[in-house]
Amino acid sequence: MNQKKEDWLIARPVRDSQSEMAEIVLPNDANPLNALLGGRLMHWIDLAGAMAAHRHSRHYVVTASIDHMDFLFPVHVGDLVILRSSVNRVFRTSMEVGVKVWVENYLEDTNHHVSSAYLTFVAVDEQGRHMPVPPVIPESPDQQRRYDDAGRRREIRRANMERRKNHL
Amino acid sequence: MNQKKEDWLIARPVRDSQSEMAEIVLPNDANPLNALLGGRLMHWIDLAGAMAAHRHSRHYVVTASIDHMDFLFPVHVGDLVILRSSVNRVFRTSMEVGVKVWVENYLEDTNHHVSSAYLTFVAVDEQGRHMPVPPVIPESPDQQRRYDDAGRRREIRRANMERRKNHL
Amino acid sequence: MNQKKEDWLIARPVRDSQSEMAEIVLPNDANPLNALLGGRLMHWIDLAGAMAAHRHSRHYVVTASIDHMDFLFPVHVGDLVILRSSVNRVFRTSMEVGVKVWVENYLEDTNHHVSSAYLTFVAVDEQGRHMPVPPVIPESPDQQRRYDDAGRRREIRRANMERRKNHL
Amino acid sequence: MNQKKEDWLIARPVRDSQSEMAEIVLPNDANPLNALLGGRLMHWIDLAGAMAAHRHSRHYVVTASIDHMDFLFPVHVGDLVILRSSVNRVFRTSMEVGVKVWVENYLEDTNHHVSSAYLTFVAVDEQGRHMPVPPVIPESPDQQRRYDDAGRRREIRRANMERRKNHL
Amino acid sequence: MNQKKEDWLIARPVRDSQSEMAEIVLPNDANPLNALLGGRLMHWIDLAGAMAAHRHSRHYVVTASIDHMDFLFPVHVGDLVILRSSVNRVFRTSMEVGVKVWVENYLEDTNHHVSSAYLTFVAVDEQGRHMPVPPVIPESPDQQRRYDDAGRRREIRRANMERRKNHL
Amino acid sequence: MNQKKEDWLIARPVRDSQSEMAEIVLPNDANPLNALLGGRLMHWIDLAGAMAAHRHSRHYVVTASIDHMDFLFPVHVGDLVILRSSVNRVFRTSMEVGVKVWVENYLEDTNHHVSSAYLTFVAVDEQGRHMPVPPVIPESPDQQRRYDDAGRRREIRRANMERRKNHL
Repeated sequence: MNQKKEDWLIARPVRDSQSEMAEIVLPNDANPLNALLGGRLMHWIDLAGAMAAHRHSRHYVVTASIDHMDFLFPVHVGDLVILRSSVNRVFRTSMEVGVKVWVENYLEDTNHHVSSAYLTFVAVDEQGRHMPVPPVIPESPDQQRRYDDAGRRREIRRANMERRKNHL
Repeated sequence: MNQKKEDWLIARPVRDSQSEMAEIVLPNDANPLNALLGGRLMHWIDLAGAMAAHRHSRHYVVTASIDHMDFLFPVHVGDLVILRSSVNRVFRTSMEVGVKVWVENYLEDTNHHVSSAYLTFVAVDEQGRHMPVPPVIPESPDQQRRYDDAGRRREIRRANMERRKNHL
Repeated sequence: MNQKKEDWLIARPVRDSQSEMAEIVLPNDANPLNALLGGRLMHWIDLAGAMAAHRHSRHYVVTASIDHMDFLFPVHVGDLVILRSSVNRVFRTSMEVGVKVWVENYLEDTNHHVSSAYLTFVAVDEQGRHMPVPPVIPESPDQQRRYDDAGRRREIRRANMERRKNHL
Repeated sequence: MNQKKEDWLIARPVRDSQSEMAEIVLPNDANPLNALLGGRLMHWIDLAGAMAAHRHSRHYVVTASIDHMDFLFPVHVGDLVILRSSVNRVFRTSMEVGVKVWVENYLEDTNHHVSSAYLTFVAVDEQGRHMPVPPVIPESPDQQRRYDDAGRRREIRRANMERRKNHL
Repeated sequence: MNQKKEDWLIARPVRDSQSEMAEIVLPNDANPLNALLGGRLMHWIDLAGAMAAHRHSRHYVVTASIDHMDFLFPVHVGDLVILRSSVNRVFRTSMEVGVKVWVENYLEDTNHHVSSAYLTFVAVDEQGRHMPVPPVIPESPDQQRRYDDAGRRREIRRANMERRKNHL
Repeated sequence: MNQKKEDWLIARPVRDSQSEMAEIVLPNDANPLNALLGGRLMHWIDLAGAMAAHRHSRHYVVTASIDHMDFLFPVHVGDLVILRSSVNRVFRTSMEVGVKVWVENYLEDTNHHVSSAYLTFVAVDEQGRHMPVPPVIPESPDQQRRYDDAGRRREIRRANMERRKNHL
């Protein structure tokens, strides 16, 4: 780590953090009906998200939150699960990462969207202290849209947090 | 299974579904800083939630969604993680389950709230078809409050789903 | 750990160590007939026992021995296994912990006693040296009975150890 | 399985069931002090025992009981654990299997006895019904001694079971 | 599977089988010096290879062989391992798949080539019988080179097999 | 480690490194057709090889390469896999280890040769630096044959490495 501290803070394009992970569903990942456990999928989503956050921040990261997530399509033992992730936007020491999950059934040559997740990661040093994260540069219209949406989602998160504090 | 189908639909009190799960954090559950991976915790939350959903519905269940979740307190290798779950409310074939997570450090005799999660589970038969779930009966003021809140959260979920459809 | 050493040795009631652990039996926990492996169950029993020993002693613990154990009822993939543990009695640096195992079949709404185990744990410091353990206070007639039985079991263990030394 | 049923019941020498298993202790097998978890070792003992029982009975087997067991020597991450097992004696549908555990530290070229265990396995068919097991033939003085001891241990087990029924 | 059998045999371009897998090295994947176990990496290589073979053949596959493989660069706990695979060439019922392994250290922003492997997979039906595999179409000069090399490697494999039969 | 450095370099007979490992194939080790994954078997082969290398070198070891390997016989869930390994020959800081794999089906009382593998391990110190390895002494004609073959295989490896450098 012979770089000057400021180097870490030079903005990077979204494509530097784009990651892809693939898992074959094994028996232990499933319930007695052979359906993938929701929690196992969440575990993979968190790993795929951390991968993008690592690649962007060049730091250790910890998961700070995950947004509401729906499981839209069932996944079974033997299916191939593909997870694609990238950093959508940076907020000083935290990043919103988007993870999109697909399932491939190679016997039937089909492909379905299983879930989309938005996670917030925080960059930390070896003592667990929060570290500044370099900004991310959206380059395509899609990346720009996700960048803008990440700002909106942040507002919703804050509003929800307020509501939770008051109601619950 | 020599009971008549209707037996399954007789209402049950919340306490019949209350579950407790405990896990000791092992090295493979953690990142290189010895902090529990967010995804591993989500996996345990899903298992703890499924346990309450199983006990209430007396059926196989699958995870349909999980609400926004914050990780409020760091957890480390060697810590004891306690997860408590119960069914908050039933909506015909789905249930909202609440899971509350605590960490105990037995060396220092401390105890912290790590996270709270609300998951929706659907009861299914062996072919994966949705099955009706018996109503749940709140018996304490706390259970009544969670029952009422579950209704409110359901409205928020539906409003958010509409928003996601339109914006994103 | 800013407490004085003597604080560790103040007696604690049995209820402070009472622990509950739950596991859903997954395919990898079973033999080709879908029956839970005896060794997997022993692994869970040891974890459940260690949990009670941790909570009572506020120290690291290591397993010193386990008494004869019968497997009374078969357990299968998809079953819910519940383990309840507590410290029965303390002998200076060691503790007898009792673990009782139940299996729940949530589809049939049945519940069976699978096994009961008595383990001895020793409290150790970071160098592995034995540490004194605070006494335990039985509060209910059941806890008192287990306390008395633990004394008897200790005598039997010592007599058996003598016999093993001579015969085998 | 094109053999006649009676073939299964022809006596076999002890050496046909002798098995050896070796495991390298990985981080997940250990507590935060790097000491092998007692329960992980019990899991390996059960697998090593099942191996001998399989080889002798040529049937599926399930663990029926395990005798009192002491952990005599600490084992750490990176150590090599060697487990040796064989069938000591057959009692119609059950077998006593002995498992002896050694730890090797290859850096220091040392070797210690960690534990000895006696397990009872029952042979079962695909429906889980008990099946007769062929007798075992001790060929060496050591095997003869273990054969005789297995008979004595069986008496002790029965006496203890009676005692447990009455006291506890 | 409502397609006619012949459809399976229409040639597919290499890019249809290109796969990427990523793994974060966890403590249990490593030896006591924190270096990734060679066998764990081979396990990932086999999974990455099977992924490409599945996608190309649209069938179950089994590993038939793996060529000589060197481990060129050490990998450690916390590193990110990237595996890229594709089908190089088809020989009626078998396929040569190439897997290239990279390690990324996200803290130091470095990237190294760890290993290259060539595996042969066979496509099978549910009874394990060999099935014909559609030809693969190389589209880029690199893919063409790998296609040609795969033919040469096949000759070497056959010559080596002859040599092994005679010498060893 | 109170031995003088030179002690490590005294030649040892092959039998000092002979190792045996046994594994029961569990559901998670298999594909959806219940056939053992090739990569899982390679993982076990690497562990069995490392065991022999550890025992001979009395050092930490890392895998440097594995030769071409065929999977000759299918293995299924519930089968017993036996791996036997020993050091064939030493080349200053590296060792060739041979691993032979057998599968036992205890229900049918059959036994098949699954695979043979030759791995090269390097002995290292705590900083990962290569360390000299004591010579190995073949004592039986079989061990002598493997010793001689190891020399020939080394020549082939070097020739192949040259060829790979030039062609590919």
